[in-house]
Amino acid sequence: MKKNAIIVAGGSGIRMGSSIPKQFMLLNEKPLLYYTIKAFLDAYEDLQIILVLPLDYTDMGQEIIDAYFDKSRIRITAGGDTRFQSVKNGLALVEDEAIVFVHDGVRCLVSKELIHRCYEQAVETGTAVPAITSRDSIRVITEEGNEAFDRNKVKLIQTPQTFHSKILLPAFQIDYKDKFTDEATVVEAFGINVSLVEGEEDNIKITRPVDLLIAGQLLKH
Amino acid sequence: MKKNAIIVAGGSGIRMGSSIPKQFMLLNEKPLLYYTIKAFLDAYEDLQIILVLPLDYTDMGQEIIDAYFDKSRIRITAGGDTRFQSVKNGLALVEDEAIVFVHDGVRCLVSKELIHRCYEQAVETGTAVPAITSRDSIRVITEEGNEAFDRNKVKLIQTPQTFHSKILLPAFQIDYKDKFTDEATVVEAFGINVSLVEGEEDNIKITRPVDLLIAGQLLKH
Repeated sequence: MKKNAIIVAGGSGIRMGSSIPKQFMLLNEKPLLYYTIKAFLDAYEDLQIILVLPLDYTDMGQEIIDAYFDKSRIRITAGGDTRFQSVKNGLALVEDEAIVFVHDGVRCLVSKELIHRCYEQAVETGTAVPAITSRDSIRVITEEGNEAFDRNKVKLIQTPQTFHSKILLPAFQIDYKDKFTDEATVVEAFGINVSLVEGEEDNIKITRPVDLLIAGQLLKH
Repeated sequence: MKKNAIIVAGGSGIRMGSSIPKQFMLLNEKPLLYYTIKAFLDAYEDLQIILVLPLDYTDMGQEIIDAYFDKSRIRITAGGDTRFQSVKNGLALVEDEAIVFVHDGVRCLVSKELIHRCYEQAVETGTAVPAITSRDSIRVITEEGNEAFDRNKVKLIQTPQTFHSKILLPAFQIDYKDKFTDEATVVEAFGINVSLVEGEEDNIKITRPVDLLIAGQLLKH
């Protein structure tokens, strides 16, 4: 089946205390986005990427593509004010009858195996959302305070969140709501239950400067 | 108030694929336990440590103490088959009217600030359990599948779980139950609500070989 990956790197990443957005920060002398794009291009030869960037950084994204990749496999579009809007902008370029991966640009350690797992599950059930179990005990906040909660019933959600286009495209016609923190919540609001697949502990989101150092060790490993 | 820290390193850590338990593995040429012990000794001059080790490794623990620390501040006791039993063995050495920290031996990056935060909260309310919010979206497993859950209502629990001895000692007289995954669940079963304090993202549990590399980066940072 056709395969499209929307890589969402719409943020301007002020949190990292850096002058450039975190998706462009260097890891072993290459921008984070390099690793993310490469993981998807390497996973399937017939996969096409839609890279969603802040409007002011589309040129910087084009430079990465020109330097490292086959231009015919990657298109760039500008992001919006929310993740929902950024993904929606990306969806405008998606092909019909495709499996669509939506992936955080700053999860640059995603493996080929995880991408394959998501694809196969999405072909079968229409949806595939990678999830891992917490290594720590879990408590939930209640009206009275907090209480213990079975760790095995709580899943930490990652990307690529993967869907058949015939689900994802109509789901994103819905009006934006604050609770739409990821694509799974949008699809759920559209009335479809999502299937989980096993995620990966190393598939971390780079959000702090020290995460770059951690990612460096994980890459080496 | 008197301060006792039970450092629980009762596991024999086969998971790391190493011939020695993970609490003895080296980080910058010193065993993990060195960092854990040092953090507590440095946090308060009048704090006493109770180190719970597998019976076969008490000698190895004693060597670390002899090499690096003031022997008068650390006692060793043997662990049991469960974490509950190991902590219970440690509690036999706790002083009356003390604040008792119970800490995972393999969380060697705990900071002085977190130890202080736990102490102050436990003096005030009798209980202090460090917790952080997940950076990832959360879903919970339901009978029908899974559903989105407010990330801000889920807490990932760390140690040192900290209690007044007059709460922790009687709470541990209860019969063991499988749901006792940490001290907070024991205290809760005793009928006491626990208070949460803000934990630290870097206060990770070393459970995989790559975590040693990550911890090395976090230490440097």
